[in-house]
Amino acid sequence: MRLTKRTITILGGDKRSVYLAEMFKQDSYDVTTFGFDEEVHNCKRAENLQAAMDGAPILIGPLPFANKVGNLNAPLCNEKIAIDHIINEMKKDQILFGGHIEKKWMEKASKANVQIVDYFHDEALQVKNAIPTAEGTIQLVMEKLPTTIHGANIIVLGFGRIGKVLAHLFRQMGANVSVGARKSADFAWITQAGYRPIHISEMATIFQEMDVIVNTIPVQIVGMSKLVNIRKDALLIDVASHPGGIDLEAAKTLHVTPLQALGLPGKVAPKSAAKYMKETIENAMKKLEG
Amino acid sequence: MRLTKRTITILGGDKRSVYLAEMFKQDSYDVTTFGFDEEVHNCKRAENLQAAMDGAPILIGPLPFANKVGNLNAPLCNEKIAIDHIINEMKKDQILFGGHIEKKWMEKASKANVQIVDYFHDEALQVKNAIPTAEGTIQLVMEKLPTTIHGANIIVLGFGRIGKVLAHLFRQMGANVSVGARKSADFAWITQAGYRPIHISEMATIFQEMDVIVNTIPVQIVGMSKLVNIRKDALLIDVASHPGGIDLEAAKTLHVTPLQALGLPGKVAPKSAAKYMKETIENAMKKLEG
Amino acid sequence: MRLTKRTITILGGDKRSVYLAEMFKQDSYDVTTFGFDEEVHNCKRAENLQAAMDGAPILIGPLPFANKVGNLNAPLCNEKIAIDHIINEMKKDQILFGGHIEKKWMEKASKANVQIVDYFHDEALQVKNAIPTAEGTIQLVMEKLPTTIHGANIIVLGFGRIGKVLAHLFRQMGANVSVGARKSADFAWITQAGYRPIHISEMATIFQEMDVIVNTIPVQIVGMSKLVNIRKDALLIDVASHPGGIDLEAAKTLHVTPLQALGLPGKVAPKSAAKYMKETIENAMKKLEG
Amino acid sequence: MRLTKRTITILGGDKRSVYLAEMFKQDSYDVTTFGFDEEVHNCKRAENLQAAMDGAPILIGPLPFANKVGNLNAPLCNEKIAIDHIINEMKKDQILFGGHIEKKWMEKASKANVQIVDYFHDEALQVKNAIPTAEGTIQLVMEKLPTTIHGANIIVLGFGRIGKVLAHLFRQMGANVSVGARKSADFAWITQAGYRPIHISEMATIFQEMDVIVNTIPVQIVGMSKLVNIRKDALLIDVASHPGGIDLEAAKTLHVTPLQALGLPGKVAPKSAAKYMKETIENAMKKLEG
Repeated sequence: MRLTKRTITILGGDKRSVYLAEMFKQDSYDVTTFGFDEEVHNCKRAENLQAAMDGAPILIGPLPFANKVGNLNAPLCNEKIAIDHIINEMKKDQILFGGHIEKKWMEKASKANVQIVDYFHDEALQVKNAIPTAEGTIQLVMEKLPTTIHGANIIVLGFGRIGKVLAHLFRQMGANVSVGARKSADFAWITQAGYRPIHISEMATIFQEMDVIVNTIPVQIVGMSKLVNIRKDALLIDVASHPGGIDLEAAKTLHVTPLQALGLPGKVAPKSAAKYMKETIENAMKKLEG
Repeated sequence: MRLTKRTITILGGDKRSVYLAEMFKQDSYDVTTFGFDEEVHNCKRAENLQAAMDGAPILIGPLPFANKVGNLNAPLCNEKIAIDHIINEMKKDQILFGGHIEKKWMEKASKANVQIVDYFHDEALQVKNAIPTAEGTIQLVMEKLPTTIHGANIIVLGFGRIGKVLAHLFRQMGANVSVGARKSADFAWITQAGYRPIHISEMATIFQEMDVIVNTIPVQIVGMSKLVNIRKDALLIDVASHPGGIDLEAAKTLHVTPLQALGLPGKVAPKSAAKYMKETIENAMKKLEG
Repeated sequence: MRLTKRTITILGGDKRSVYLAEMFKQDSYDVTTFGFDEEVHNCKRAENLQAAMDGAPILIGPLPFANKVGNLNAPLCNEKIAIDHIINEMKKDQILFGGHIEKKWMEKASKANVQIVDYFHDEALQVKNAIPTAEGTIQLVMEKLPTTIHGANIIVLGFGRIGKVLAHLFRQMGANVSVGARKSADFAWITQAGYRPIHISEMATIFQEMDVIVNTIPVQIVGMSKLVNIRKDALLIDVASHPGGIDLEAAKTLHVTPLQALGLPGKVAPKSAAKYMKETIENAMKKLEG
Repeated sequence: MRLTKRTITILGGDKRSVYLAEMFKQDSYDVTTFGFDEEVHNCKRAENLQAAMDGAPILIGPLPFANKVGNLNAPLCNEKIAIDHIINEMKKDQILFGGHIEKKWMEKASKANVQIVDYFHDEALQVKNAIPTAEGTIQLVMEKLPTTIHGANIIVLGFGRIGKVLAHLFRQMGANVSVGARKSADFAWITQAGYRPIHISEMATIFQEMDVIVNTIPVQIVGMSKLVNIRKDALLIDVASHPGGIDLEAAKTLHVTPLQALGLPGKVAPKSAAKYMKETIENAMKKLEG
């Protein structure tokens, strides 16, 4: 397929999608928007879904793609736009990009013989998103902690993408950083980076020293027996996606209130998040062009 | 003088003074407080000023010391406490510490033949305070900027204590940092640290590139002719103390709204700020003991 | 198996094996050495191979294990010690550790029904070794470059273990670091870390700017067409293992002399390298004990 | 004075002066050299001193300027060039730059009514030189230490220009850095930068832990009573200029051999050192032009 026509339609989404539309426009795309009550700077605004989709080879949906009741995630629009409706309107030569799309929509599109691509599966995007996630966590810590991050004792649980960027950023700001992990190769990297390595199975033994505990592991690892070791004046933050790594029932019993920090990139740096989405979608478009 | 009696009285102040009282108490001082409507954890609360001051070799006042109408700076207390009254009650063997004390109070104390010491003049304290000031500025930028600090173009005007710490912190977080200075030795340090050095006289030429401009110079250097070069979507922050370095009249004309960021240590990290105050006062006490 | 007897024999090796023997001794092991002309501090010295091996549950050979003619790698010993001979002497309840052991020795051991373990396959060891490899490369650059590393333009080709640590170290020292890679996720990490990402296919276009080019990719990627773009005063270093990534014939034609930098951990930091070997062997011992 | 004629003569010096001549030439100056047996690339070579000096408004001598017997410091030339002779040949409208010029030459020039300027007094030059000094020290440590700098325990004595850059560089490379100082403001900066602050009067108490001790204080502070606490396998390096900070007699008695590291910029990074000299001289020239 040749995407010679630099024409796209942005369908719904939050502030990121607004920035995304503006960025494509600045990059001399012909941009139509639908799913926003307000006009997006310099972009055309379609009157209805059909007009929005008609003649656009590329349709770009939001991240996440749908809400729980099957409508497009379009918080800046009062009208409800059913995903079913969108799929029904699609033509064979159109491509619809969306982020974090549930399996059922992929299957419906497949049955309808139209093409949907999930840009959220891109590893590079997830690495990029780790930066605003880490900065958003830092901001949260700054708001809640009565001391500076400089000199604070902080443990990051998990050494995946977000754990790596978060540990790095805390240390760059002068915190004493410990990292909880399990694998010996991770331990070697943790030591190389200058953090104190802690085996996950022994983390509770040092919780008492910690001013801040940030979990990034999406499996429940901080249960009652660990929670009791956390100081009353310590901050406990969970950035792992649902259901997170902290036993919320146990926490309630102990009067500990973990802060849930989800969807940070869209909240704290929507313009950066939009830029990453654009890069990812353009890469995907290049691949489709072959 | 021997301060063998570990007995102190904390007089007024904000959250920092509360933390300060608690810290002295934890350090097994006998602590009395006055000028707080609420009780301070574990500390004695004096019924009136005379009771508070009586028998305490060391009195510790807040930072800043007084408000504009001549009362002790005591925002957590409904009662008004006149500085004149405090000076009148002082005995010859007492020492009153305070921060940022106006000359007139020093003179009154001198006339009354009692001893007041300003702990704010301590260079080490000012260096320490540069850390929460920088973190507080980072927090402000995070709240206002729709992009990550990582990758942002930021210029710091001035390379004194706060400029140094601020440029360092922005760079540690992955920003592209420029520093505006005048002296060739500063330029050499700026280059050593890896920032882009900009002569203050030429700063306006690069304002167009900047996402964030932070002034630390307490002399008006950003006037109309410079302000016109600042992008509409750029953040302009002044952390220099009154009157700051930005021409506010010119800014208003241009619909630019500089953010004033003053007294950050007490706001964003009161517990750290209290710790620094305690270290400074204890050093001063050691020197007085000889 | 229970390794309750803390008794080991160190067989041959370079300075690392000497440090290794000393470290096990300090850790209250009973240590016998063989394959060193000089006595190792505080350790027993066996008269012959049989005496060295007799009664020791654990035998520790060098890294690399053998030389080209089938003898133990024992540069500090004049006597030749055949690997065949060692395997023949082994008992069923002994374990021989060695590093980088050729397949044929593993097969011979298997046939003889004795147990050989290659500690070099451990990922954590390889991560640890990346640190002295990077420091050794820095030392080489310092010796050869007439400028400081601070401010130098340096490209690291490849973003595996060594590429990551090397790029980090150069940047920590103030160099302007570019990294050549191919994968989009690597590009995201490279950008996150603050390096300039360069696609391997386009690296030649920026060779002209580079003061130092370090290859870490063990596949020939720097051939004639790329070499012609390298400045005469630039340093070209290959740390990739044989055959390296630089076309040596083409380099000779162009009068460019790439520096080969191999086996750096043993050369520049034998004591650290020994420490890593000890940690790896002890982990392996723990696993064997179950 | 107007230095419109971009004509200079380089008189003697080491490799730095050769690079300096080449850099001025590249910068389209008309460059004559004298005091080098070999020809300098692209530059004119004067037959004798008179020819070298004749008609050049700017004469640039080496750093340091003179040797002990009163000749120009010209290690790359067999001929001896007396400073007296140079001063005698000078015209009133010429300026001679030199580095680290003894007072007696300044006085002689003054009497002869000719103008000599010492570029070594420039603070910016000294800051710049701290970088190659620190890198040269790192190189020395790398050559001598059997472990990596990463993870090593290192103390830097003194927190002036070189102490600051050195502590920074060691820490950037992953060492555990302590800094010995006296002033409370220095302590605050040392803590801000993340080093462990040690009062100079107590440094001996932690010498036992140290793998590397680097002195930067040009006053004898490491005497017998401190030297006895240094481990036999520790590295002791003095980068302070003559007489340095270590009691060499006491060291000899204890069989400790401090490494003297002097004049590092010219040795390890002559091209960078030449660049700094050029920047300094050009600044001085601009000021003279007014």
